[in-house]
Amino acid sequence: MSTRHAWRLARRPAGSIVADDFRFGSESIPELSDGQFLLRVRYLSLDPAQRVFISDQEQFLPPVELGAPMRGLVVGIVERSKKEGIAEGTILSGVGEWADYIVSDGTGLTELAAFPGLSLAETFGTFSLVGPTAYFGLLDIANPQSGETLVVSAAAGGVGQIVGQIGKLKGCRVIGIAGGPEKCAFVTEQLGFDACIDYKSVDVGEALDQLAPEGVDIYFEQVGGPIRNAVMERMKMFGRVSLCGIISEYNATDADTQPSFWWTIMMRRLTVRGFIFDDYRTRFPEAMENMAAWMQSGDLTTRQDIRQGLANALSSLQDLYSGRNFGKLLLEVTP
Amino acid sequence: MSTRHAWRLARRPAGSIVADDFRFGSESIPELSDGQFLLRVRYLSLDPAQRVFISDQEQFLPPVELGAPMRGLVVGIVERSKKEGIAEGTILSGVGEWADYIVSDGTGLTELAAFPGLSLAETFGTFSLVGPTAYFGLLDIANPQSGETLVVSAAAGGVGQIVGQIGKLKGCRVIGIAGGPEKCAFVTEQLGFDACIDYKSVDVGEALDQLAPEGVDIYFEQVGGPIRNAVMERMKMFGRVSLCGIISEYNATDADTQPSFWWTIMMRRLTVRGFIFDDYRTRFPEAMENMAAWMQSGDLTTRQDIRQGLANALSSLQDLYSGRNFGKLLLEVTP
Repeated sequence: MSTRHAWRLARRPAGSIVADDFRFGSESIPELSDGQFLLRVRYLSLDPAQRVFISDQEQFLPPVELGAPMRGLVVGIVERSKKEGIAEGTILSGVGEWADYIVSDGTGLTELAAFPGLSLAETFGTFSLVGPTAYFGLLDIANPQSGETLVVSAAAGGVGQIVGQIGKLKGCRVIGIAGGPEKCAFVTEQLGFDACIDYKSVDVGEALDQLAPEGVDIYFEQVGGPIRNAVMERMKMFGRVSLCGIISEYNATDADTQPSFWWTIMMRRLTVRGFIFDDYRTRFPEAMENMAAWMQSGDLTTRQDIRQGLANALSSLQDLYSGRNFGKLLLEVTP
Repeated sequence: MSTRHAWRLARRPAGSIVADDFRFGSESIPELSDGQFLLRVRYLSLDPAQRVFISDQEQFLPPVELGAPMRGLVVGIVERSKKEGIAEGTILSGVGEWADYIVSDGTGLTELAAFPGLSLAETFGTFSLVGPTAYFGLLDIANPQSGETLVVSAAAGGVGQIVGQIGKLKGCRVIGIAGGPEKCAFVTEQLGFDACIDYKSVDVGEALDQLAPEGVDIYFEQVGGPIRNAVMERMKMFGRVSLCGIISEYNATDADTQPSFWWTIMMRRLTVRGFIFDDYRTRFPEAMENMAAWMQSGDLTTRQDIRQGLANALSSLQDLYSGRNFGKLLLEVTP
């Protein structure tokens, strides 16, 4: 094993990402130094924040440098090790690269717990990012109460599907927003949301007026743009907005021109709070234990959208920004 | 006593309020019915929200109707009473009218506690609105920690002066923003703020870069517009914005065109929370007791800007929106 395949950042994208923004090819794998190991990547997680990583916008990690391997969450198996305490065969997950093999000293990687009855894709796909995001973003940021109305945008996506199901477990009335009848049927029939608004076929605001005439207590925000505006206009007194993402603006080249809603926030005494799952790292075990138990009992369904082959990383990521994923998007890199 | 003087709303103002928006004159006082009393108004409180009361914007009370007496917080003395439990000579404060005499059944009025060493103007001016607003808006909404940097806009105003002094009592580094050298000197020299930015003579953003190079933990927001934008750009990770008011926009006729800062809120994990003092009514006694003790010990200074005569109500209120008040604005209606 002396070569690997990897994606490197060729330039900072302007607007939507295109093929020329990256270079995909094979490259030699350096010899392991003491303290290093070779990880064979099993799955790569494709997440909205990756568009942010390659921009020069304000963000929560340093941007990926030009020429550097593209950053992403991975899970893999240690194939060779010169690092004490890391045995061959260990399964590690965390911040890695878009590559089939990674030489690492372990920075950013931790052992992934195994849960009976859950596959590696389910465990990695759920617990590496979307699970803690949904868990803490709903429970800690929005503090849902039984009987409250919760609206979840990107409801069929990796985070949204979990948010809505936890909301149901907490006694909320849950309204999803998703694109297309297939996703909406999944959200209501498979996941048990009370309703789902297909933003591609109806006006979100009018649909909310029908489904939640008294307004919205909690909005789990992932999308930005007109959908956010429609929900914000319908927030109830003392409502909470859990600000998880703004995917419609990640590719934006315009300035900040969205309505600010300062007035609404003041008059309705709303709380708008931003968060990133990593803020809760010390409490991940709590989230994983609870979510694994719900998954094992069937109370929590997590749908994966698993693509095949590292060569498809870019096209799969592009699908995320146009809503062409259906569930948590993963790429199976090696068998 | 058969006539009173009163201000009535003649039309909804467009933009800044002008004289023709109101009618001021004398009118007859009806006979008291059973359950009513006649209140002689001592002081009228002039507050930024009054511009909102006469608009058709979303607000927290029903708008003042055309032709109705203008609404305002008052303190007065019961002169005649046909209401059980309300003796002549009782001092009542609460929601009233711009008038020298008010016939009331007691709705919205409560007895004003007296505190040794505090005048009626201090007690009414501080405890009826600005005190609880400052107290809960800082302590409950923003949860200040010792060593944090607190920025207070409208720092020499009724709310701002109290916010900054409570911030100092809690160990914060407090930076005020006020208009003009006289107000700034008052804020630092009399109230003990660590610094004050005169927004009329310096760039607020540049001044903040000098005074708080590591950023702002808490922003107590009352003004909106470019000042808010400058502070928002400099919020620190996990900062809190206590959204108390947007005075620069109360007279606005434009649509919502301020930057939204959704991205900043998300990436820096900010909390933006709107509130209105009245939300804390059940906890007013706690705030009054603590603030009265601080006032009595000299730890809390409250500057009043007391104007004379009901005929000056409108011009005094107009001063509020152009920053020509200096301290909590009150009108002495009757001696």
